[in-house]
Amino acid sequence: MKSDKISEAVVRRLPVYLRYLNELHKREVTTVSSQELGQKLDLNPAQIRKDLAYFGDFGRKGIGYDVSYLIEKIRQILKLDQRINVALVGAGNLGHALSNYNAFLKDNMKIVAVFDAHPAKIGTSINNLTVQPMEELERTVRDNAIRIGIITVPDFEAQNVANQLISAGIEAILNFAPIILKAPAHIRIHTADFTTDLQSLAYYLDNGKEESAHEETQVDG
Amino acid sequence: MKSDKISEAVVRRLPVYLRYLNELHKREVTTVSSQELGQKLDLNPAQIRKDLAYFGDFGRKGIGYDVSYLIEKIRQILKLDQRINVALVGAGNLGHALSNYNAFLKDNMKIVAVFDAHPAKIGTSINNLTVQPMEELERTVRDNAIRIGIITVPDFEAQNVANQLISAGIEAILNFAPIILKAPAHIRIHTADFTTDLQSLAYYLDNGKEESAHEETQVDG
Repeated sequence: MKSDKISEAVVRRLPVYLRYLNELHKREVTTVSSQELGQKLDLNPAQIRKDLAYFGDFGRKGIGYDVSYLIEKIRQILKLDQRINVALVGAGNLGHALSNYNAFLKDNMKIVAVFDAHPAKIGTSINNLTVQPMEELERTVRDNAIRIGIITVPDFEAQNVANQLISAGIEAILNFAPIILKAPAHIRIHTADFTTDLQSLAYYLDNGKEESAHEETQVDG
Repeated sequence: MKSDKISEAVVRRLPVYLRYLNELHKREVTTVSSQELGQKLDLNPAQIRKDLAYFGDFGRKGIGYDVSYLIEKIRQILKLDQRINVALVGAGNLGHALSNYNAFLKDNMKIVAVFDAHPAKIGTSINNLTVQPMEELERTVRDNAIRIGIITVPDFEAQNVANQLISAGIEAILNFAPIILKAPAHIRIHTADFTTDLQSLAYYLDNGKEESAHEETQVDG
């Protein structure tokens, strides 16, 4: 299992599989086929089988995947069986929204500290965390073994915040500012700019209309 | 140019290319190579050349891509040269954050209406838009030719909101609730659950550490 053989696209799909598998598990479904996964997740079943085969031989022909086993495996692969501490920088609306996300409390991944550069924000409380000044970033990251940083500051402040996170020892950044951050190659950066999601949706708008005239409408699920 | 030949992964990368090309254009850079794009965007240059080749022969050997021309082409492909109206449902922190995103005001894609089911939110103002009750959704969507809906309500309300958006005539949905929505096949749904971004980042944490011991650190950009 070499990381450099697995494309980012595959790694990004694993949490999506995991989310649906958890949903199946809650409904006490014990096995699932790649066809069913594909239909639910809008992906080609062959693609799903290929993705999961990177990590081992999980499926059984004619039966499908064991839901519990696959959940456990994907959690291991994504290292969600470890405790991972996260710092959030930017205590605005988006920062509030993210820190309230209840999904966070699962999987041992947790925002343990919130920072902001603006005096009016410092000392206020978000989701039981007190907003700290940027001057405390380095010490807090070290003392709490924080490994991931989330950036929700305005774009013109984002590169500066990224630099501070990196020099504090952060290994990966989830960036919500609509700019491309510069960072050393060993720092992993994902940009979660929702405008790119919207723009890729626009691509499908007219096509959807043309196609729906030719196709029968299928109701999924 | 048939939509069914182009994978979603490619369509999702186009806005990322566009964002960086716009940045180059602002800096008055006129040509860019796939190598440079790849380095900036953490993608294989061959992948980038393949992605762009789906849409036509944009590059010139030894010179690279013409920045302005590529911007224009990608905007056409993504239909960003059309005006597209968007409705937002859910006037909480995330809804506020999204509607304030200044990137929205570019590219003719705009949130033109905000809805919420909760009496305390209705009538309040977000970014110069008055929050409307859900009862007005259908009429407003029709009167404003709204084609995309953004869902930022809690997970237990999301499916209900999706159903209302779809019956009002929405063609595509960007869903921020951490659940998988059911919808007819002709409705395009992207789920922008940021927890999947975080989970896929976790995958790289230890690998990064192991690799950085063997590799020289490269500074990007």
